[in-house]
Amino acid sequence: MRNVFGNILTLTTFGESHGEAVGGVIDGMPAGVAVDMDFVQHELDRRRPGQSRITTARQEADHVEVLSGVFEGKTTGCPIGFVVRNDNQHSQDYDNLRRLFRPSHADYTYTQKYGLRDHRGGGRSSARETISRVVGGAFAKLALRQLGINVIAYTSQVGSISLGRDYRQFDFSLIETNPVRCPDPATAKAMEQQILDVKAEGDTIGGVVTCIVEGCPVGLGEPAFSKLHSALGSAMLSINAVKGFELGDGFDICARRGSEVNDIFYNAGDHIGLRSNHSGGIQGGISNGQDIVMRIAFKPVATLLRQQPTVDLDGQDAMLDMRGRHDPCVVPRAVPIVEAMAAMTLLDFYLLNKTVTL
Amino acid sequence: MRNVFGNILTLTTFGESHGEAVGGVIDGMPAGVAVDMDFVQHELDRRRPGQSRITTARQEADHVEVLSGVFEGKTTGCPIGFVVRNDNQHSQDYDNLRRLFRPSHADYTYTQKYGLRDHRGGGRSSARETISRVVGGAFAKLALRQLGINVIAYTSQVGSISLGRDYRQFDFSLIETNPVRCPDPATAKAMEQQILDVKAEGDTIGGVVTCIVEGCPVGLGEPAFSKLHSALGSAMLSINAVKGFELGDGFDICARRGSEVNDIFYNAGDHIGLRSNHSGGIQGGISNGQDIVMRIAFKPVATLLRQQPTVDLDGQDAMLDMRGRHDPCVVPRAVPIVEAMAAMTLLDFYLLNKTVTL
Amino acid sequence: MRNVFGNILTLTTFGESHGEAVGGVIDGMPAGVAVDMDFVQHELDRRRPGQSRITTARQEADHVEVLSGVFEGKTTGCPIGFVVRNDNQHSQDYDNLRRLFRPSHADYTYTQKYGLRDHRGGGRSSARETISRVVGGAFAKLALRQLGINVIAYTSQVGSISLGRDYRQFDFSLIETNPVRCPDPATAKAMEQQILDVKAEGDTIGGVVTCIVEGCPVGLGEPAFSKLHSALGSAMLSINAVKGFELGDGFDICARRGSEVNDIFYNAGDHIGLRSNHSGGIQGGISNGQDIVMRIAFKPVATLLRQQPTVDLDGQDAMLDMRGRHDPCVVPRAVPIVEAMAAMTLLDFYLLNKTVTL
Amino acid sequence: MRNVFGNILTLTTFGESHGEAVGGVIDGMPAGVAVDMDFVQHELDRRRPGQSRITTARQEADHVEVLSGVFEGKTTGCPIGFVVRNDNQHSQDYDNLRRLFRPSHADYTYTQKYGLRDHRGGGRSSARETISRVVGGAFAKLALRQLGINVIAYTSQVGSISLGRDYRQFDFSLIETNPVRCPDPATAKAMEQQILDVKAEGDTIGGVVTCIVEGCPVGLGEPAFSKLHSALGSAMLSINAVKGFELGDGFDICARRGSEVNDIFYNAGDHIGLRSNHSGGIQGGISNGQDIVMRIAFKPVATLLRQQPTVDLDGQDAMLDMRGRHDPCVVPRAVPIVEAMAAMTLLDFYLLNKTVTL
Repeated sequence: MRNVFGNILTLTTFGESHGEAVGGVIDGMPAGVAVDMDFVQHELDRRRPGQSRITTARQEADHVEVLSGVFEGKTTGCPIGFVVRNDNQHSQDYDNLRRLFRPSHADYTYTQKYGLRDHRGGGRSSARETISRVVGGAFAKLALRQLGINVIAYTSQVGSISLGRDYRQFDFSLIETNPVRCPDPATAKAMEQQILDVKAEGDTIGGVVTCIVEGCPVGLGEPAFSKLHSALGSAMLSINAVKGFELGDGFDICARRGSEVNDIFYNAGDHIGLRSNHSGGIQGGISNGQDIVMRIAFKPVATLLRQQPTVDLDGQDAMLDMRGRHDPCVVPRAVPIVEAMAAMTLLDFYLLNKTVTL
Repeated sequence: MRNVFGNILTLTTFGESHGEAVGGVIDGMPAGVAVDMDFVQHELDRRRPGQSRITTARQEADHVEVLSGVFEGKTTGCPIGFVVRNDNQHSQDYDNLRRLFRPSHADYTYTQKYGLRDHRGGGRSSARETISRVVGGAFAKLALRQLGINVIAYTSQVGSISLGRDYRQFDFSLIETNPVRCPDPATAKAMEQQILDVKAEGDTIGGVVTCIVEGCPVGLGEPAFSKLHSALGSAMLSINAVKGFELGDGFDICARRGSEVNDIFYNAGDHIGLRSNHSGGIQGGISNGQDIVMRIAFKPVATLLRQQPTVDLDGQDAMLDMRGRHDPCVVPRAVPIVEAMAAMTLLDFYLLNKTVTL
Repeated sequence: MRNVFGNILTLTTFGESHGEAVGGVIDGMPAGVAVDMDFVQHELDRRRPGQSRITTARQEADHVEVLSGVFEGKTTGCPIGFVVRNDNQHSQDYDNLRRLFRPSHADYTYTQKYGLRDHRGGGRSSARETISRVVGGAFAKLALRQLGINVIAYTSQVGSISLGRDYRQFDFSLIETNPVRCPDPATAKAMEQQILDVKAEGDTIGGVVTCIVEGCPVGLGEPAFSKLHSALGSAMLSINAVKGFELGDGFDICARRGSEVNDIFYNAGDHIGLRSNHSGGIQGGISNGQDIVMRIAFKPVATLLRQQPTVDLDGQDAMLDMRGRHDPCVVPRAVPIVEAMAAMTLLDFYLLNKTVTL
Repeated sequence: MRNVFGNILTLTTFGESHGEAVGGVIDGMPAGVAVDMDFVQHELDRRRPGQSRITTARQEADHVEVLSGVFEGKTTGCPIGFVVRNDNQHSQDYDNLRRLFRPSHADYTYTQKYGLRDHRGGGRSSARETISRVVGGAFAKLALRQLGINVIAYTSQVGSISLGRDYRQFDFSLIETNPVRCPDPATAKAMEQQILDVKAEGDTIGGVVTCIVEGCPVGLGEPAFSKLHSALGSAMLSINAVKGFELGDGFDICARRGSEVNDIFYNAGDHIGLRSNHSGGIQGGISNGQDIVMRIAFKPVATLLRQQPTVDLDGQDAMLDMRGRHDPCVVPRAVPIVEAMAAMTLLDFYLLNKTVTL
């Protein structure tokens, strides 16, 4: 249950940063989905380190090899196994970590939990684990595309610079035109500069990713414990460095009155319309046909390229001096990961919803 | 998988607002836990409507009857079945809802999903569903008590009035001394007044619950998809009206630098200390031994005691005029529900963690 | 995961023999299934003790009360909670069991596993646990009926007396005409006599239930670990006293050659026909449209009404002298339980199969 | 849920006969288990085709590559990903299968279920899928070895030739001394001859594997639906070609009386002894400390090297003339697969049992 995501559509992942490979198994993918491997690889490339000067300088090819479940260009309904080899790992960059715990990193908790230490690149807690998520998400997107469901994410905050909440003001086609993945070019520039400034100081900075789902049919989500946003929140909170999740108006709604934020139904001729979308596309845990709107908070990367005090395996005070190649801000590369988690969740609940009537 | 919560310790629930009863099955509860039924009933009483003038005027006795799994005062390791009868339901209060959808409520999405309508009191989407959660949580707390783990929640925001984030400034023994469940008496008064003002206008208001877990051992939480805060977030987001979840510094951390918010380890003599707790007690998805700190955002109750435009089952414009007995603010009664979800999650992950070594 | 059966359609059960009640929660039942409560109660009556002189003399009313999930005569898609009160329990019949382990019963293993002893009537290991299964199965049958799927079981062996394997020679309408539930009246008489003979000696006897599923569509069953017969086998082996499971020709097929037992396809005009059904309706783990044929082996009831040597809680040799009211042969009353487990499994896999294409 | 086996210890598998590779992910393996890769490869070699003249002539190297979850010779608690490349596949052997359904094979049911056909070597229904099971089982055996639990299987029947039920008469060290994997050398010779005779006619033959678990502690198995033998039965019935499962005396017990087959406890000085083991080591679904004894029925391989009538994709009558390289009897190579499924089930339930007390 631990490294398995989902209910009907499941993704089981494996792999550490400095092991042989990362990979996984996509199970429950419906048969007959057209597979576009260029698209799958392109999604991985969006996550890849070394894309731009604001990401880590690591050069990882991250080529995905699909081993099963696809025949003559279509999914067969059988599990899709895949691997991505690790081939640009500098394990020696981590030699000074053999006995030290990085602050606010998983080093300490892993060691305590499992009674042993894989110091190389964070082991399983490395961001390389998200490669498998992006592959799973890419396949999910191929299925969602056939259903007319579209998942888009973008950077809406970097440090002190943030966009307004209303996503309808933005042109999503601009998201991929800048390295920050922000749909507002001017703000993107400022965000990029802030990241470079922080990087120059060996420091890191946090941010927010906004995710929109367009075209979601009414009815996805199971009441009680498997509400659609409960599953989406769980999915997002499972991404490294995520500290918060909001649906619709999120925390802002707490200061408002029901009369201000209730979404009013009206007769829109051929369908039932809604005058607003404070709910973020989900009511009672079930999608209502409006856009699903989420915000995901990322903390600053814990690994700093400057000295930090810490302790060693014996609990003795020590000084940590990290080198290695690390992102000053995880948010731009997190955008495709957020999309992947949303896509897998939606496909999973789409399939689950097929079982609620005979 | 839908109405089942948890992995090892599971709670399966049933029941609609105006059916015969609500109830559930607690499975995987370890054998030998001392059962204090007065405590279980007391927890339910904290959730009960009609406690004070800021909650709904409904008078529900909500007496829990345990049907199995307890013998001679101890849990036996067998499933604990329980029921709470529904006995103060005014179904006629909902007659005008037979054909109308309440804005921002689950009426519309349920009807679309299942192809039928149980209009009485919201049916399964009613807040009465949380009774079963509180019973499950009460049993989980009994087990956690034997492990020295303590779960506390309180109201930290009502509408425009909020407490500071730092919970260490508050005296938790004051939480239950006021109907708002706020540990700061002066702020509690102001919150109470705001709720009464809103109620007087037939309106509703949102708020925030903060939840703290004390005494959590290091090592709870499974990496990747079952991170401890991923499970906690999912649990909280499954509570009716919740729109956001934060761990530790939450969204505030996005504007900060790594050098500001990394939690620094130091040699504290007999143990490894941490100079701060921006992480909220979880790193890499695994508890680090510090207090776990969460914030949960509740939207205003959707049911207003004033007219609202809406549509009917045929999609025709209509006017909704609700009566019935509804809370102007769900937050004070949500406090024990938040605690219940936290308690069940922690016990579940405590048990799961027992399997990571031979 | 322990007291939960199924994947999409799940049954979670609770209850001990001498507790307040047994019951459960049926989750994932599709919305819109017509509910016939007389049928549900009738199924329970088929399982009830005291039906005839070959069953235990216990008189248990076993009235089922449904608490949720049904509205205006139809399932709503919400969980169906139900309870059956325990009201004819003679706990004092078990007083001599406080410190003794019954041979081949669960007394010893339960005590060792959980570290405590509920000696009254076998506690959770009692056959009363199967009440919940029969209720779950009755609801599943109501859904299967709408799908044209029919589940029938009968007694095919009692002790040394057995029917031939070929079920097509029998008139199923005769099954319920005799207390043994055997479709061949003459054999039924002999079986009944054998049970009475054994009972007269305070002894017990084993037997076999055969179960047939008619009208199963092609395609149910998931390859690899969730083969349809793997799930059916697991379901049957979870019934108390079951020691063996066969699909189709079962163990008899081991002595045969492929050329003898391959089921040959032929052009039957409007469909693809099969010349035989050695496979028992499932090939590669997936239903092939033929009748599904299973045999389930039941051991003799462990509780004898005669003296047996055993040990006590301290491991000291002792003599066990059971009174109480026990079945001399569990098979006739097991027939509806077998049907219930088959019905739930089939509905579960029917629903699961809806997710294999978009 | 489909291609995932187990609860705490899980194996997720992927791969088709003629795809790139088969493989899987072992999740929930405890940290700190010593990994002996020679042993893992040796287990695979026991399953490998081309071992002897009674198995298929296919030469598959079946080299396992472990990609994660092992560090410095020990399991880390992280998922163990592995692949075994497919490299001796003769897809052209299956060209005549493009449009024909093999009798009693999964060809027809797969095509109906998924709406498409992977005709090469049976695709996912191929016996190559069991490679992943053997790898999973080998890791489970390494953990069980540290716990003193030992799993042994052997061929107890081939066609008309069978061993007696009482396994204690055999010397298990002789099992691997003959290609049939039968502990009785004389019977092994006869079985081998029967397989060769059948093979010479292009026919196939069924058989039985007996599996024994030594050293199992008391207490494994969860009552109700997750009885230990329910899980073992499900595991075995999920192996290709299995048609029956027995625990202890199995179907033979049906003709017996309780007074004959109850296993009587006695004071054995330092422990509680049992005078017999008709129960096969499990009572009430929970292991009782005796040897666990199972028998598993395998049907004859469906693919014959002789002509068989069948139909094509259009339902027209046709004649099937298979070539290719197939086993005349699957039983000898099934022995390590049975052991693997038993080993994974036992480790899973061992871990699960750790959660039943605080």
